[in-house]
Amino acid sequence: MMVEFEPPQVACIVSSANHSFAALRATRECVIAIPSIDLAPIVVKVGNTSGRNIDKFATLGLTAAPSTRIAAPLVEECFANLECKVADTRSVNKYNLFILNVLKAWTDPAKRERKTIHHCGYGRFVVDGATITLKSRMR
Amino acid sequence: MMVEFEPPQVACIVSSANHSFAALRATRECVIAIPSIDLAPIVVKVGNTSGRNIDKFATLGLTAAPSTRIAAPLVEECFANLECKVADTRSVNKYNLFILNVLKAWTDPAKRERKTIHHCGYGRFVVDGATITLKSRMR
Repeated sequence: MMVEFEPPQVACIVSSANHSFAALRATRECVIAIPSIDLAPIVVKVGNTSGRNIDKFATLGLTAAPSTRIAAPLVEECFANLECKVADTRSVNKYNLFILNVLKAWTDPAKRERKTIHHCGYGRFVVDGATITLKSRMR
Repeated sequence: MMVEFEPPQVACIVSSANHSFAALRATRECVIAIPSIDLAPIVVKVGNTSGRNIDKFATLGLTAAPSTRIAAPLVEECFANLECKVADTRSVNKYNLFILNVLKAWTDPAKRERKTIHHCGYGRFVVDGATITLKSRMR
């Protein structure tokens, strides 16, 4: 979830059973790659496999692209990628909750599909629908 | 954001400039009321006003319904309401981040509209679209 706008900061929960958890703790950095609906079948495969056993890029046909601020690669197929460094681990042991600083944000203007998917559990996803704009004083 | 399934736990960020922040710190409990798209104009008004100055229930035509585990009321017009107690404040001073235990969850089966809205900033909201189901081993 969003924590702060400027400088941009997010919080995320990563199950301690996941390889990502060990990797995030060891390297203290990660890319948050944001897939659109067309990638949903690959997203499920990413979630149903572990980096402990396979190279997900090679096995699932994803392309690693170079980051500039961290060592972890971007996922070329995603329309947005956030380069992040761990800012705070005070809630990791108890809640698996990492506070991340977003150091660089990428978006690929050539990718027209930008509808994201929200996992509701058991393979069920809600896809982004219409965008509405209401008069508001809120940023 | 979701923190844990069982027992259910969520994390939420509340701006320290908001009346809700002071109320949450003082009472250590809250209701997370989940509005559907038909309430969007009222949602914006709720966000653009402060409980410091007005009674939002009275002013915005919302109905307070009794909770069972906490003192704060449910919002009758919302299709779902979560009764929560603050579980941990360790990240409040630095990140305005509260860890909440969800003690009771309500849903109103008579309310057919269940599309939620996601604020992207400046009054722009993405509305839930289609639901898709893919074969997955993930809960």
